[in-house]
Amino acid sequence: MPQHAVDELIDVLDLEPIEVNIFRGVSPQEDRQRIFGGQVAGQALVAAARTVDTDRRVHSLHAYFLRAGDPRVPVLYEVERLRDGGSFSTRRVAAIQHGKVIFNLSASFQAAEEGFDHAFPMPDVPPPDGIPTLRDRVLAAGVAAAPWIDRPRPIDIRHVEWTDPGSPRPVEPRQHVWLRADGRLPDDPLLHTIVLTYASDMTLLDTATLPHGASWFDPTRFMASLDHAMWFHRPFRADDWLLYAQDSPSASGGRGLARGLVFTRDGTLVATVMQEGLIRKVR
Amino acid sequence: MPQHAVDELIDVLDLEPIEVNIFRGVSPQEDRQRIFGGQVAGQALVAAARTVDTDRRVHSLHAYFLRAGDPRVPVLYEVERLRDGGSFSTRRVAAIQHGKVIFNLSASFQAAEEGFDHAFPMPDVPPPDGIPTLRDRVLAAGVAAAPWIDRPRPIDIRHVEWTDPGSPRPVEPRQHVWLRADGRLPDDPLLHTIVLTYASDMTLLDTATLPHGASWFDPTRFMASLDHAMWFHRPFRADDWLLYAQDSPSASGGRGLARGLVFTRDGTLVATVMQEGLIRKVR
Repeated sequence: MPQHAVDELIDVLDLEPIEVNIFRGVSPQEDRQRIFGGQVAGQALVAAARTVDTDRRVHSLHAYFLRAGDPRVPVLYEVERLRDGGSFSTRRVAAIQHGKVIFNLSASFQAAEEGFDHAFPMPDVPPPDGIPTLRDRVLAAGVAAAPWIDRPRPIDIRHVEWTDPGSPRPVEPRQHVWLRADGRLPDDPLLHTIVLTYASDMTLLDTATLPHGASWFDPTRFMASLDHAMWFHRPFRADDWLLYAQDSPSASGGRGLARGLVFTRDGTLVATVMQEGLIRKVR
Repeated sequence: MPQHAVDELIDVLDLEPIEVNIFRGVSPQEDRQRIFGGQVAGQALVAAARTVDTDRRVHSLHAYFLRAGDPRVPVLYEVERLRDGGSFSTRRVAAIQHGKVIFNLSASFQAAEEGFDHAFPMPDVPPPDGIPTLRDRVLAAGVAAAPWIDRPRPIDIRHVEWTDPGSPRPVEPRQHVWLRADGRLPDDPLLHTIVLTYASDMTLLDTATLPHGASWFDPTRFMASLDHAMWFHRPFRADDWLLYAQDSPSASGGRGLARGLVFTRDGTLVATVMQEGLIRKVR
């Protein structure tokens, strides 16, 4: 069953080529109001990568979410080849629906190169195996069971720290989450990068709500990703456990900013993530 | 003399309107090989802001440096209006020289809004007043005086920590720098944001070299900004001292990633900065 959800995710991340530089993606059959941001980010990165030599790996991306994605119609991804240099290739991707840009991404790819090496160490947190699944956490909290709780879920998420979503208490804006694709992924390194891009949009913005006793579960809270940036430092597998160490330096003006560092289980820093999001009280 | 350099910077950041959405910027008369990245970033942000209602303030930007800027010819800035929504306006700016995009920026602007508020505290470092200027630091180090040392400098930079650039020793990838425009700026808040954008490109990437005993001064080292992202949290003046607290989570593959938090002297967190750069050994 989880492998089925993972296979569906792999399908969703496999775009249809329409023309050179133009691709089309679909959304899974779901009655959601908007497309999940990580899906658009992942698909846009796929589109960019399809126009770059496979020996150049993506090392960074920067994106803005502009409009809510409509899951009932496909998304068109139009790639602009900004530069193909001696070592780097840079792409811009506009995701289009109903004649409008819903998402704008830039990404940079690099041929393999050697250089200085250093990395922040992994924080000391409990391993994922003994931590309850998100489903068990939510059910145990006894909050009105969200309709999505029994949806097939391609990403297994284990919250190291957990605040009861029914009565959250203010805590420091820091959290650790273990995550992985809940099934086997093919060996293509790009796919692992894209699955992490997809998953990295799932818990990050919540970090900015932690000091305010407001949870992602709070129906009086409207949250939406505004932007998303990632840097990929070293190879990893997204179907092995990854530790997502998140903090939020600031919230102000109805926005929250969060940062993430992603480590493999053996402590290797593999990615850095930044995201700002809108956090609004719904009256 | 410093005020003259600041006035020249203000001039450089004042673009010539060519058409709706098209602006032109020039570089100061200097015999540099390439345009300083902070200048292109600042000018591109000016271009974006000129197409947005002034009651919407920039809260974030994401940019890629694509090609070295040529200081002998003007830079054309072409603005694409990605979205004007109820609260947010988003722009994309392509900076063009010799028919090619040299720099690609996206920026988002927001109407004033209230919401949650929290911020990381300012690190405890010595105040700027007793710290030598960059010029005094470099002259005292006795390294071959760089020709740029007597150039008028619009930004006054005071390194809290300092490693002798002649014989740098490996240290943790963290540093603190006080900076401000070295003269009076007009009261327009946008200009202060743009001057910080300009200045934020100056020391950040150096942070990634600190663990490797390599300084920005090292002629065997080639460094170039690859991208630049900023989030603006609260109002500030760029002609008052700002503390730029920088660290580098990772370096690998010939690239270094650095993060910055910017505080006013009274400890208010006003901006967050991210930058990845190329760090190559020149043989």
